[in-house]
Amino acid sequence: MIIVLRPKTEESLITQVEVEVKKLGYEPRLIRGEIQTVIAAIGDERGHPSLESLGTWPQVESVLPVQRRYKLVAQEGRRSASVVVANGVGIGGKEPFRLMAGPCSVESEEQILAVARAAKKAGATFLRGGAYKPRTSPYEFQGLGEKGLELLALAKKETGLGIVTELLSEKHVEKVAAVADLLQIGARNAQNFSLLQAAAGSGKAIMLKRGLAMKVEEWLMAAEYVMSAGNGQVILCERGIRTFETGMRNTLDLGAVALAKRESHLPVVVDPSQGAGRVDLVIALSRAAVAVGADGLLVEVHPLPAEAKSDGQQQLDLAGLNLLVEEIAPHVKAMGRAG
Amino acid sequence: MIIVLRPKTEESLITQVEVEVKKLGYEPRLIRGEIQTVIAAIGDERGHPSLESLGTWPQVESVLPVQRRYKLVAQEGRRSASVVVANGVGIGGKEPFRLMAGPCSVESEEQILAVARAAKKAGATFLRGGAYKPRTSPYEFQGLGEKGLELLALAKKETGLGIVTELLSEKHVEKVAAVADLLQIGARNAQNFSLLQAAAGSGKAIMLKRGLAMKVEEWLMAAEYVMSAGNGQVILCERGIRTFETGMRNTLDLGAVALAKRESHLPVVVDPSQGAGRVDLVIALSRAAVAVGADGLLVEVHPLPAEAKSDGQQQLDLAGLNLLVEEIAPHVKAMGRAG
Amino acid sequence: MIIVLRPKTEESLITQVEVEVKKLGYEPRLIRGEIQTVIAAIGDERGHPSLESLGTWPQVESVLPVQRRYKLVAQEGRRSASVVVANGVGIGGKEPFRLMAGPCSVESEEQILAVARAAKKAGATFLRGGAYKPRTSPYEFQGLGEKGLELLALAKKETGLGIVTELLSEKHVEKVAAVADLLQIGARNAQNFSLLQAAAGSGKAIMLKRGLAMKVEEWLMAAEYVMSAGNGQVILCERGIRTFETGMRNTLDLGAVALAKRESHLPVVVDPSQGAGRVDLVIALSRAAVAVGADGLLVEVHPLPAEAKSDGQQQLDLAGLNLLVEEIAPHVKAMGRAG
Amino acid sequence: MIIVLRPKTEESLITQVEVEVKKLGYEPRLIRGEIQTVIAAIGDERGHPSLESLGTWPQVESVLPVQRRYKLVAQEGRRSASVVVANGVGIGGKEPFRLMAGPCSVESEEQILAVARAAKKAGATFLRGGAYKPRTSPYEFQGLGEKGLELLALAKKETGLGIVTELLSEKHVEKVAAVADLLQIGARNAQNFSLLQAAAGSGKAIMLKRGLAMKVEEWLMAAEYVMSAGNGQVILCERGIRTFETGMRNTLDLGAVALAKRESHLPVVVDPSQGAGRVDLVIALSRAAVAVGADGLLVEVHPLPAEAKSDGQQQLDLAGLNLLVEEIAPHVKAMGRAG
Repeated sequence: MIIVLRPKTEESLITQVEVEVKKLGYEPRLIRGEIQTVIAAIGDERGHPSLESLGTWPQVESVLPVQRRYKLVAQEGRRSASVVVANGVGIGGKEPFRLMAGPCSVESEEQILAVARAAKKAGATFLRGGAYKPRTSPYEFQGLGEKGLELLALAKKETGLGIVTELLSEKHVEKVAAVADLLQIGARNAQNFSLLQAAAGSGKAIMLKRGLAMKVEEWLMAAEYVMSAGNGQVILCERGIRTFETGMRNTLDLGAVALAKRESHLPVVVDPSQGAGRVDLVIALSRAAVAVGADGLLVEVHPLPAEAKSDGQQQLDLAGLNLLVEEIAPHVKAMGRAG
Repeated sequence: MIIVLRPKTEESLITQVEVEVKKLGYEPRLIRGEIQTVIAAIGDERGHPSLESLGTWPQVESVLPVQRRYKLVAQEGRRSASVVVANGVGIGGKEPFRLMAGPCSVESEEQILAVARAAKKAGATFLRGGAYKPRTSPYEFQGLGEKGLELLALAKKETGLGIVTELLSEKHVEKVAAVADLLQIGARNAQNFSLLQAAAGSGKAIMLKRGLAMKVEEWLMAAEYVMSAGNGQVILCERGIRTFETGMRNTLDLGAVALAKRESHLPVVVDPSQGAGRVDLVIALSRAAVAVGADGLLVEVHPLPAEAKSDGQQQLDLAGLNLLVEEIAPHVKAMGRAG
Repeated sequence: MIIVLRPKTEESLITQVEVEVKKLGYEPRLIRGEIQTVIAAIGDERGHPSLESLGTWPQVESVLPVQRRYKLVAQEGRRSASVVVANGVGIGGKEPFRLMAGPCSVESEEQILAVARAAKKAGATFLRGGAYKPRTSPYEFQGLGEKGLELLALAKKETGLGIVTELLSEKHVEKVAAVADLLQIGARNAQNFSLLQAAAGSGKAIMLKRGLAMKVEEWLMAAEYVMSAGNGQVILCERGIRTFETGMRNTLDLGAVALAKRESHLPVVVDPSQGAGRVDLVIALSRAAVAVGADGLLVEVHPLPAEAKSDGQQQLDLAGLNLLVEEIAPHVKAMGRAG
Repeated sequence: MIIVLRPKTEESLITQVEVEVKKLGYEPRLIRGEIQTVIAAIGDERGHPSLESLGTWPQVESVLPVQRRYKLVAQEGRRSASVVVANGVGIGGKEPFRLMAGPCSVESEEQILAVARAAKKAGATFLRGGAYKPRTSPYEFQGLGEKGLELLALAKKETGLGIVTELLSEKHVEKVAAVADLLQIGARNAQNFSLLQAAAGSGKAIMLKRGLAMKVEEWLMAAEYVMSAGNGQVILCERGIRTFETGMRNTLDLGAVALAKRESHLPVVVDPSQGAGRVDLVIALSRAAVAVGADGLLVEVHPLPAEAKSDGQQQLDLAGLNLLVEEIAPHVKAMGRAG
């Protein structure tokens, strides 16, 4: 950490900071500048208390952390990107680009099987679909719950597709993990650390969506919670952040995909459906997601979007899914990847 | 709902929308405008599926909801503001302004008792303190857990202060509720609906912090989750939202306090410590919170902020607490409230 | 406009709104809903005063605009996208993808010629470079001014590249327009309507950067200022918006590119250098910009970024420029465009 | 500046940075940490080129500025807050709390005189009113221009109130300065540095609104532009920032008022009308603005808000103005100020 002192701080007050830094387990190094004095506190910031508390002292202008706070998810020192394997399918590294498609919510056997067959045919390797749905209002459709899980299992049995579904509650870990190949942690729970740890304990691969107001650093720290709980199978999923723009539901942050891939060895996939919140932008954003370097796409597809029980406005229909596959294909190839 | 059609939409496509609106349970009313046609869909939006899905149709330009989505938390039709009672102390309505003070984390018996005594002496009616702490990094201090709860119980026994402490996990409901008078749901869990429902079931009063990227409407909808689960004892807590500003940890949104009090009958308190994230702004923001009309303050106090195990930079010391009380007093009086 | 009245509004108060709506030049249509009554106000919203003022009346819950506010920039009713021509080079529509490259600031003859030659060789059709620089601090390098313009003219003379340079002041219109082929309006002036109108009057093509906190709708309205002043040669440039994320300088909003292209017939280019603010993400974001459907790239290039007088951290060096060209080529082809 | 090197950087690459730091005019000091090495670059950051460009080098992880970039506006080294005097009335320091009231736009003689008289009677010392209006759409009312200035002069002649009005264009400096006592720079021009310098040159006191996406530091830097151009008469005006919240037009950032007053000696006033964008929150936010420590209020008042030509939904009527004065009075007194 670097502690910046106010200009013209008296010697005795400088010494006071040095003494406290030492007390908190760091070795202080004084650097006298032209205008201001700074104290570099030597020590592993991850193993010691934060010195940011010193910011309450009148002679301290600011405290600047120097080290990255994540270890296990960091790219540093790694030779190569990680590959996460779920349902026998690798995601990340030099693996083919992965398409994960399916409805926002599982609604009926007919619906989920129709999408699963179409997804399979279109080349997807995973079927997504919510059995438990986090909804802003308690009066909205909350998902079919266990019945939804059964329908996902049925669709897997028929098509062989891996299942991606959201885990909403610590109490559901066992039953959701029994069906899911990728346990999804949703944006609203991205810093629900109890749930992250419970999910990690299931042994299943985890797909961690970025929270609505989560910095990339915090997203990686949430992944660090999973890895430090002993589960190294983590995939990051960018799904848009909340900004002032109201023309789209969220602002899809493709720069964050590039940044996460530089900072970390974890695979990163993109959800353009949540990102845009409007179906007319989904294909363009999917092409861009491929080109920025994502390892896969998580995309919402429904046989009849206008009658969907949740988020119909952002779901592709089956023809839309085929168009998406056609449009991304040359970009997948341009990235030197199998599709 | 109002469905806005694109200019120059053909009659047959207008009819198609009317038919679908009827199918989804609403009664369509066509209004032909100078430029555009709109269809008003009559029906209770809270009891029917959303029509927003129609936004995927090419002839639909936009879909505008008309009704507020919250019922139980709404001001409408109420004669007066609600009073929440915890540990025999009323919050909200015409009750006195309430001071809730205490450390970010419970760290030791000595620490919590020192703060509890000072808080009691300063006129606080509640002691706050985290036993379970949600931390961005898994390597940071996570709270004392059950030991922390015991220390809070001890402090309550000695001082009689009500206890405010955070509930982090569905698995902790019983043991946290055994000690807490106000169960706090933190900003990172503000849309963890499973936790909200579990907390509601405890029968304890709930203090619901606003999420980092939560619109006021969504905050009220989260409160609606608690109320619709049968627990009417809900207090809202504004603690700052996340914006682009980096000079403060969060942007305390006092307009949201005024708005929440207009829209809802629930009490609203303000947390200026999280709001500013720096102790030198806490007292000024506390005065402003009183003047905007808040029903209470939740403020962080530590005997030795520089050595706090979490968030020391935003905690007042004991002298700071006394200064705060002195500074807010005339504003509390100006609001026509007892202090 | 749609005026939503509060539930249970008395008849006399409904009539009061109808009367006022008529007085303000619209024709009111009453629709009685199950819960609430709404009044649709028929009339061209662009030719009448806004009814949003009615929101101050106690019986009015909200006022919802229905029509889009832009006319000239709107896609609606157009058969095809516009092509803007500058220095004989077409941008937009089915024109080839355009590369605009050059330093943040023009610093010296040697510097600008080195970049111009490299840009030309790499296939760029425009040279960018700031002669007048808007800097956050008055103590930072403010650009070479007229000398900078002369150097740009020199570089154009040698290479034939069109010139893109920023107009900062109404007082500079004449001299900047004498050199520039594309007059750039920077993000900080994107709603400086006096400057927009002055720039429009120059007759030069205008490149309008999106402001840091500008909704897509407002960006299009700013373009409408230029078009309504009689200048139809407008290019939009997405350069990132300001969000809470601190890992990058801005959040490049590629969804906004897709949205602007749907809503408007104007060409859209992307500035990944400002968007990321860090050179290590520029190439990935450039690929994504191509794939999302942008008509060109505006990219910062400097022979020696570490010694740049402004924003060195986001400038590619000459080798970087060549790598960028190589990496985007297959994506340009995938989009069915010449490069 | 502090240059943080990546872990395990080779010696030769460390030396390379040291050499460059020296070349750019700083003195490098090497500090070897447990995990990482940092180089402190000694020198006045305001008089040297930024080292942030070094961030492009592969061995550099980050570059952290240490010094504040503002000098003239800084609190540091000042004994007391500044008082700005306009029309013989002092603002800031220990001067009375100042009320500045008036319509969004000057619309007619009748309108402006009605408001001016009411404002005078209510105790205001300044009349606000826009003659030139920056509007999102070119089709909206743009203000009366010179006629509006004449009407403001008339109102001043009758009431003696000082005039606050916005300067929109460098070309209007002379005529606006002939009437205004406080030249307002609007939020959309807050980083229009040409306009700031032109305004400074008028010799009039400047009221600088905070931009929609402006950090406090950048706001102070904009004030530094005025002061470094030789005009020390600057007032800051907080008017809300743009965030994700849609329940209000802007998010009034009262923490920024407290922060600006800590960091700078300049007076700070608050505009709750723009801040909320809805009249029903204006009085509550005005009380809060007083209590947070603002030096004055800039508030919109119109005799008939529903028929206002701009922003009627956020304007108080004359009775509302009187209520505001009544409600803030005890808080002004609580702050120990004359009203």
